[in-house]
Amino acid sequence: MNLVLLAPGEVAANGSAHLTGPRARHLLDVLRVVTGQVVRVGVVDGPLGTATVASVDPVSVGLTCQFEGEPPPLPRVDLLLALPRPKVMRRLWAQLAALGVGRIVLTNAERVERPYFDTHILAATTYVPLFIEGLQQARDTRLPRVSVHRLFRPLVEDELDGLSPRSIRLLADPGRGVSPVEAVAHAAPDQRILLAVGPEGGWNDFERHLLEAHRFVPVTLGPRTLRSDTAAVALLAVVHEAMRKAGG
Amino acid sequence: MNLVLLAPGEVAANGSAHLTGPRARHLLDVLRVVTGQVVRVGVVDGPLGTATVASVDPVSVGLTCQFEGEPPPLPRVDLLLALPRPKVMRRLWAQLAALGVGRIVLTNAERVERPYFDTHILAATTYVPLFIEGLQQARDTRLPRVSVHRLFRPLVEDELDGLSPRSIRLLADPGRGVSPVEAVAHAAPDQRILLAVGPEGGWNDFERHLLEAHRFVPVTLGPRTLRSDTAAVALLAVVHEAMRKAGG
Repeated sequence: MNLVLLAPGEVAANGSAHLTGPRARHLLDVLRVVTGQVVRVGVVDGPLGTATVASVDPVSVGLTCQFEGEPPPLPRVDLLLALPRPKVMRRLWAQLAALGVGRIVLTNAERVERPYFDTHILAATTYVPLFIEGLQQARDTRLPRVSVHRLFRPLVEDELDGLSPRSIRLLADPGRGVSPVEAVAHAAPDQRILLAVGPEGGWNDFERHLLEAHRFVPVTLGPRTLRSDTAAVALLAVVHEAMRKAGG
Repeated sequence: MNLVLLAPGEVAANGSAHLTGPRARHLLDVLRVVTGQVVRVGVVDGPLGTATVASVDPVSVGLTCQFEGEPPPLPRVDLLLALPRPKVMRRLWAQLAALGVGRIVLTNAERVERPYFDTHILAATTYVPLFIEGLQQARDTRLPRVSVHRLFRPLVEDELDGLSPRSIRLLADPGRGVSPVEAVAHAAPDQRILLAVGPEGGWNDFERHLLEAHRFVPVTLGPRTLRSDTAAVALLAVVHEAMRKAGG
């Protein structure tokens, strides 16, 4: 934990916060904080800052927080992901928040199995704590937005423009397309990237054509086919690095 | 499974191979192969090729294989990794083989817990099947080499030169250093990259200084601190993509 993330309601107007539960346990047992020590803090979807440990007892920690003005910028990449199997999706939540995504759009596809949608992995009570874990690791406060779409065609035809407006749209494809580095090289400074990662076995022809008809450009990391969680992490890393180098 | 990987001894001189067990099950139950169908095959550390299904019965598949001349090139990146906890290491094996690494050098560090070394996760009987899974996913035949080093200093001072000769050495560091893209931009066409990824909590000062005194150059993907498995996947992806674009 490189940052203690607080809910907006946990911080009083004078900056004081009183923690119990897992975050207090971590501060006490792992970081072994003492009164007067300074730790990094942030407010979910709010600013970063520092806190001085004002009090410790065996089960709780009191903090006095000071925050910077503005929340950190929203990560510039959104992810359109064909829903992977629950075990893979569970592994991904914290990693996606740590790498930085603004929005995660989960979609059906021919090669997505129907029971994948009926799982507690897609409940906010599952993924929000995993997002918090990833954000506390990466020192960010911006909680990714999540939406789940069982109908692929209306999503692509009607909803994507609203979910990720004016984005450069990339379609991950093993062995076909340009490098994602080239594809984002001419992004405007405030332009978002929407990255589509298909199911195990790939999009079918209809799905691929529909995506390409809606401005998705094929990009590739080369001929190696990756599992969808590895592909999502690898592509997010390459796209973020390309935009970071371009000064985004 | 995008490739059926065979052991060298499984292929007769005339190219025939007879599969039982998990690969036969996958061909029969998932890919539902029939006689005459063509599938991709490879030999571990040997060439890629294609095979015609010569026979099927309820528990086995006969193949007639034809191989290309040369094995695919060894992936040009080696990984020096402070041993992560067993759960994380288990998740990494298949992903590392899929992304492509020539050698995995696992090392101790101050912030690596001693019991991590006494686990079946580090036994070849655990990791070889996971490598095979990753190679079959990525359509490669090159099994990563693995070595485990409980003594950090002799590893860095005496052994690394032999394990990854003449490599460009990169030290992953959140928030410090150049982009890995710049660091590999001037690699010679046959030059390898050795990428060091530290433990949760980072290398200590002694370890970092020793690595830098032995030609490791700090590289960063930006200020976000990533879990070591996410960092390894992200950095491998960025380095491979940088070398692929450079024509390596």
